Amino acid sequence: MLLAAAKQVFSEQGYTKATVRTIATRAGVDPAMVNHWFGGKERLFAEAVLDLPVTAEEVIGRVLHEFDGNPSGLGERIVRAFLTTWDSSEGGGFAALVRSVATHEAAAAILKDVFLNRVFDRIAEVTGPDQGQFRATLCATQLIGLGMIRYVAKFEPMASADIDTVVAAVAPTLQRYLTGDLTGG
Amino acid sequence: MLLAAAKQVFSEQGYTKATVRTIATRAGVDPAMVNHWFGGKERLFAEAVLDLPVTAEEVIGRVLHEFDGNPSGLGERIVRAFLTTWDSSEGGGFAALVRSVATHEAAAAILKDVFLNRVFDRIAEVTGPDQGQFRATLCATQLIGLGMIRYVAKFEPMASADIDTVVAAVAPTLQRYLTGDLTGG
Repeated sequence: MLLAAAKQVFSEQGYTKATVRTIATRAGVDPAMVNHWFGGKERLFAEAVLDLPVTAEEVIGRVLHEFDGNPSGLGERIVRAFLTTWDSSEGGGFAALVRSVATHEAAAAILKDVFLNRVFDRIAEVTGPDQGQFRATLCATQLIGLGMIRYVAKFEPMASADIDTVVAAVAPTLQRYLTGDLTGG
Repeated sequence: MLLAAAKQVFSEQGYTKATVRTIATRAGVDPAMVNHWFGGKERLFAEAVLDLPVTAEEVIGRVLHEFDGNPSGLGERIVRAFLTTWDSSEGGGFAALVRSVATHEAAAAILKDVFLNRVFDRIAEVTGPDQGQFRATLCATQLIGLGMIRYVAKFEPMASADIDTVVAAVAPTLQRYLTGDLTGG
């Protein structure tokens, strides 16, 4: 399967060294078709390694789907969307992401593009522009750290806790980062 | 300098492959003296890569130093202690830590020993035992994620924000994870 092959190759070789040709060969498909389907290495990386189902836009769509003008439930929806996605691959995509970001600046730039520019800028349109980029990076600290401890370092009881328990504990953090007071007042 | 050599070697070779002999040779000192000073590879890793000044016990001491029986300021003290330590090496130690944890299970086990068993178990004695390990891993998610975004992925404005701004935004999260309601109520 193409996305599985992409995940493997990015994980083994890092973003810079991995090529669409290598990934296509591993998956037994034509590289031209990969470019046709995915539009190149960046998009393939975003989808295979960030492990977002189909596209980042769909995750946003899921989060904002039931949005009714009241942003008070956004923190919970965001935490649940990411945990559900990552849990479904047992954290494999998330671990590959961390290895790539820790060792390749290009990977960090793509993560930033997808995570901040596509996901959180859209959410900031809803919550208001006050300190939007700072709020987005705060959300990123909590979500990336949650992935690190749950899927990579695997500290218990966090690694095995059910999604509802984690969502209840972490959602208020995301909610405050999105819409709350950040001055410690 | 020995700790700088250890940080280099752990970063290049990972925890499993790195040896005390390699590190000592790089630093131009006698391996026997390294074992005498540090008591072996695990301790050396904890101090060089976790980048805790001298020992984890000293960080706890700093956090609890002005402790007056009221745990309400612990969140702020913890965030400030870690950021001050990591900022002082421009995040170099933290980046090495992430690479090791992402690729070596032994490194994750040592991180867990230092971070959870030595730091947060001591803090849990103060805050009370209710869900102590779950609270400790929640604190770990926020602190590790903060390090990832500030020092490894370097997302702006988080990477350049002054310590006081970050502490004000993040301290309430740590405080709630330590002593607050985790049920989303």
